[in-house]
Amino acid sequence: MVEYAIGVDIGGTTVKLGLFDMQGMLIDKWEIPTRTEDRGIHILPDIVESINCISKKKDIGWDSIKGIGIGVPGPVLNKSTVNKCANLGWDIVNVREIMQKLTGVSNIVVENDANVAALGELWKGDCGSCSNAVMITIGTGVGGGVILNGEIISGQFGAAGELGHLQINPAETQPCTCGKFGHLQQYASATGIVSVAVKKLAESNQSSELRKKESITAKDIFDAAKAGDKISVETVKSAANMIARTMAFISAIIDPELYLIGGGVSKAGDFLINEIRDQFRKNAFFASENARIEPAVLGNDAGIYGAVKMIL
Amino acid sequence: MVEYAIGVDIGGTTVKLGLFDMQGMLIDKWEIPTRTEDRGIHILPDIVESINCISKKKDIGWDSIKGIGIGVPGPVLNKSTVNKCANLGWDIVNVREIMQKLTGVSNIVVENDANVAALGELWKGDCGSCSNAVMITIGTGVGGGVILNGEIISGQFGAAGELGHLQINPAETQPCTCGKFGHLQQYASATGIVSVAVKKLAESNQSSELRKKESITAKDIFDAAKAGDKISVETVKSAANMIARTMAFISAIIDPELYLIGGGVSKAGDFLINEIRDQFRKNAFFASENARIEPAVLGNDAGIYGAVKMIL
Repeated sequence: MVEYAIGVDIGGTTVKLGLFDMQGMLIDKWEIPTRTEDRGIHILPDIVESINCISKKKDIGWDSIKGIGIGVPGPVLNKSTVNKCANLGWDIVNVREIMQKLTGVSNIVVENDANVAALGELWKGDCGSCSNAVMITIGTGVGGGVILNGEIISGQFGAAGELGHLQINPAETQPCTCGKFGHLQQYASATGIVSVAVKKLAESNQSSELRKKESITAKDIFDAAKAGDKISVETVKSAANMIARTMAFISAIIDPELYLIGGGVSKAGDFLINEIRDQFRKNAFFASENARIEPAVLGNDAGIYGAVKMIL
Repeated sequence: MVEYAIGVDIGGTTVKLGLFDMQGMLIDKWEIPTRTEDRGIHILPDIVESINCISKKKDIGWDSIKGIGIGVPGPVLNKSTVNKCANLGWDIVNVREIMQKLTGVSNIVVENDANVAALGELWKGDCGSCSNAVMITIGTGVGGGVILNGEIISGQFGAAGELGHLQINPAETQPCTCGKFGHLQQYASATGIVSVAVKKLAESNQSSELRKKESITAKDIFDAAKAGDKISVETVKSAANMIARTMAFISAIIDPELYLIGGGVSKAGDFLINEIRDQFRKNAFFASENARIEPAVLGNDAGIYGAVKMIL
């Protein structure tokens, strides 16, 4: 009997799924909408229904599915229970138990999505052989995944890799989404970068391409920065500085070999990543200055790869 | 044949040694001076001679010594090679290889001393069952040890746990001993606390017990703080704040269950540790707020315990 494994990456808008063989080769991938209504109770049954559907099409029985790995956008305890996930409408949900009941598959592993993406990149990305790395995902918020000795570090309270909530500016008076102050994602996420630029525009009379826009996106700021727009350049440099300082903290604590920069904002490309590299060398303790800093390459597929890696 | 293991903790002034049975029971402990002259070439032969001496006294042959664990005050690569250690006069020294040649013992493991002390505290200290912890050692400098899943995290460049060199104040203009700026140990080590107090005294006319001293020690500052001396209280609070913020960074990255506060300065006791606890709760991401914060209990013995644990 041929055996299979499923990788699932649950996001706030879509759920990405991948069917793999037990050697980790991707056979098929697809996605379904995430139904967050009714406090998200449809999400897991929808996933099972969707796996069912593809299995029938491919004539794969549930008994030949040997494991399901799942990434979720919230803190996860014991590779099983999600401890609140506002994006999905979930409070405390034992995802492993529910999925075991719905599928009859016993080998189910659940992890935070940023941790899972980091594992996916290390496994199938472009990192060479590396088992100690930190991935920083810069999107609407800032997330992180920490891999040491090839294993995800989840943390005692499921909060390892919560880099977006690292307090980079104790003097901040505006709150982060979590209610505390001066967190990295207030400055370096897509929304943070926009806030910083808007504040800079309000505080000066400097001419800027950004003033011509009705509403500003992070992409506008990166485009203008590349064209030399001064306020945009300052905004990107400030974001890069905060990310680099965060990486210097990480190096003084766990000293990884590699940093991966992923997420939508990382698509700004060399301009951001080179600035991060420069600032990291300036800020890191000398022994760690030569850690590699690379862009993530798998994009949206990192999640399904990392998810399935957990159960292979 | 009864079998034995040796734990060695090499410090800048003395080398501490422990003779253990293979169940990890301490049979005897002793210390010898660290001879740092001649670029430290006598240190390892002195250790071997000392083990030889005690072995003869106890009628233990070298063939019944099954392993030697060694802690050194510098970054260590591959549990073998010290990458510069100014305190011992060492440049790059392959401690494992030299000790294997000098003793004929093959099972030799070398690690950074702060990492080793953390392992010792987790094993024989007062932590209960815990395998994810960070120890912060506040002495002349600030050191740290990171234990995840019961194993020391050494880092790619041997720099994991270098908490003293975490850049807590990017605005600092005075350099750290390492040449970079605004590092934790500039404010929170014994020397750092004294510098901060001296600066505060110079910048104000506030009366203070400290002004009566010819030269000020960290102990003077803690004693005066307990008695309510305002400048001393501010100095201790500022050190506690920087340590607590560092711990909040650590929690956002690896989210440990437990923090242990050790080193000479930690003997200031409840006053410091309670202030650290308060400030940590204020600064940490909500999920990690309840991490335990406890004083280390083994004192100078943590090193020999942790060292021997590595080879048992």
